[in-house]
Amino acid sequence: MEFDFIDWLRQRLGDSSALRLGPGDDAALLRLDSPAELVLATDLVSDGVDFDLATDSPRRIGRKALAVNLSDLAAMAAEPVSALISLCLPAAGAELLARELYEGLLPLAEEFQLSIAGGDTNTWAGGLVINVAVLGRSTEHGALRRDRAKPGDAILVTGHFGGSRLGHQFDFTPRIREALTLNAHYDLHAGLDVSDGLALDLSRICRASDCGAVVETALVPVSAAAATYAAQLGGNRSPVEHALADGEDFELLLAVPPAEATRLLADQPLGEVPLTQIGHFTTEAGLWQRDPFGAVAPLSPTGWQH
Amino acid sequence: MEFDFIDWLRQRLGDSSALRLGPGDDAALLRLDSPAELVLATDLVSDGVDFDLATDSPRRIGRKALAVNLSDLAAMAAEPVSALISLCLPAAGAELLARELYEGLLPLAEEFQLSIAGGDTNTWAGGLVINVAVLGRSTEHGALRRDRAKPGDAILVTGHFGGSRLGHQFDFTPRIREALTLNAHYDLHAGLDVSDGLALDLSRICRASDCGAVVETALVPVSAAAATYAAQLGGNRSPVEHALADGEDFELLLAVPPAEATRLLADQPLGEVPLTQIGHFTTEAGLWQRDPFGAVAPLSPTGWQH
Repeated sequence: MEFDFIDWLRQRLGDSSALRLGPGDDAALLRLDSPAELVLATDLVSDGVDFDLATDSPRRIGRKALAVNLSDLAAMAAEPVSALISLCLPAAGAELLARELYEGLLPLAEEFQLSIAGGDTNTWAGGLVINVAVLGRSTEHGALRRDRAKPGDAILVTGHFGGSRLGHQFDFTPRIREALTLNAHYDLHAGLDVSDGLALDLSRICRASDCGAVVETALVPVSAAAATYAAQLGGNRSPVEHALADGEDFELLLAVPPAEATRLLADQPLGEVPLTQIGHFTTEAGLWQRDPFGAVAPLSPTGWQH
Repeated sequence: MEFDFIDWLRQRLGDSSALRLGPGDDAALLRLDSPAELVLATDLVSDGVDFDLATDSPRRIGRKALAVNLSDLAAMAAEPVSALISLCLPAAGAELLARELYEGLLPLAEEFQLSIAGGDTNTWAGGLVINVAVLGRSTEHGALRRDRAKPGDAILVTGHFGGSRLGHQFDFTPRIREALTLNAHYDLHAGLDVSDGLALDLSRICRASDCGAVVETALVPVSAAAATYAAQLGGNRSPVEHALADGEDFELLLAVPPAEATRLLADQPLGEVPLTQIGHFTTEAGLWQRDPFGAVAPLSPTGWQH
């Protein structure tokens, strides 16, 4: 299948000026306009874990496979450059499935000016697996790392959290534009994208930065979907608990010096995407949550463990 | 599992001077010493297709997953820079398997001065899938493409062909050093690595270059394994037929101008790795084989179709 499929893909992709040589050779060639720090990331998604091929459309699945990688570039405040797409397809109906996956991911690639440099397309007796590897470049403002949060920094987040299973896990927009805007105009100490859960990913930025954090639970921006999802599951967990633990929000979590956070929150520079302070980083290790009445309790770093 | 595994991996990898930021963040950062043309490739291998987890050791499987990617860089005459490793692991025994896969691939990465920039490690209910994406850089001699063969060019190959199933498919050495040496000192028109079969990959260089080819079957360097394998299968196909069709030889197939080919064959600059002319490229499309008695017949582009 691979040969005809590459023909189709080359026609579908058209010319990409960013690439000197695109899909069809053993590798792709590209040259960056100017010296740049390269940013490399990869994410693999599989049937039954990140999507369900029986119920989710191939176009949404393909879009998600690329979007989670773009979210990693956003987490580094990097500009997208190029992607490599690997498909491991169930043998039956493989070519149609491959085309639909690409039809799902290509509009997103175009939106973020990402060229498809190549890939690998295979069939096997197992379920669908998609791997995407992305190449980005950092800007003159540098890359945003997760290991530079400082005690006293405000914890800021974009958007809303929780209930991503109801659709957001497929429909989210990677926060590339938001990360580039914030990194260009504000002093950010550290950041990541919330993929596995707000509390779990917060624990990771704390661990990497050798600090702790306190979250004001009343300040966590809870999505409408979190409330719906909590109700659907019988209400054993509150919407804010879902916001803290569901994951796949793909929002930015940032460590920002206090004065800069004040300026940023007043500016609200991201248009429709709200920026919210949900707490602050502390000297002592550990995660804590404080409720609206001032009671402090440990915050469990729950979330999606692969 | 991912979190502890990344700790293990970071310790196992140690510091890599090529990387400004390695595994553990959302993406890796690296800066190349000088402006360079970037070379990007990816290959996915899966259980039951490229290896058999029931009988092949995880270390050999891990090595192969990286080696096939290095072979793609060799095909472009590119220097290895960095790799991203994605593992999709059966849930039972996942961490031990992941470590063994890395123990298999890391010595090869070290041999070719390739840094592991990061990856993604997941478990699922299915079989083992490994995706590797590699970043390389072309040298001042440029990249070796497959679409520049010219009628009259000699078809040169490194090494021997056939019977790779008996072990070579795991044990081969990617022809990075050989490709860099040849590209630096000789005028090569085009090249690729033989992954899917000598005849099939020859048809691909012909198609990309808009030409045909004649293979002198008596000149094809047949490996000892091809004869053993042919005998094991009952001798329905001759050793040279296996050499032409088995695939996974991971040798270089080159298009070289005639005078340069004469010089190259006299020099034999690759030490223990022989260079052999097996035919020449033609103006008319199509693949032909000529036997020792001068009889010409079509050569079927058989090989491994994914």
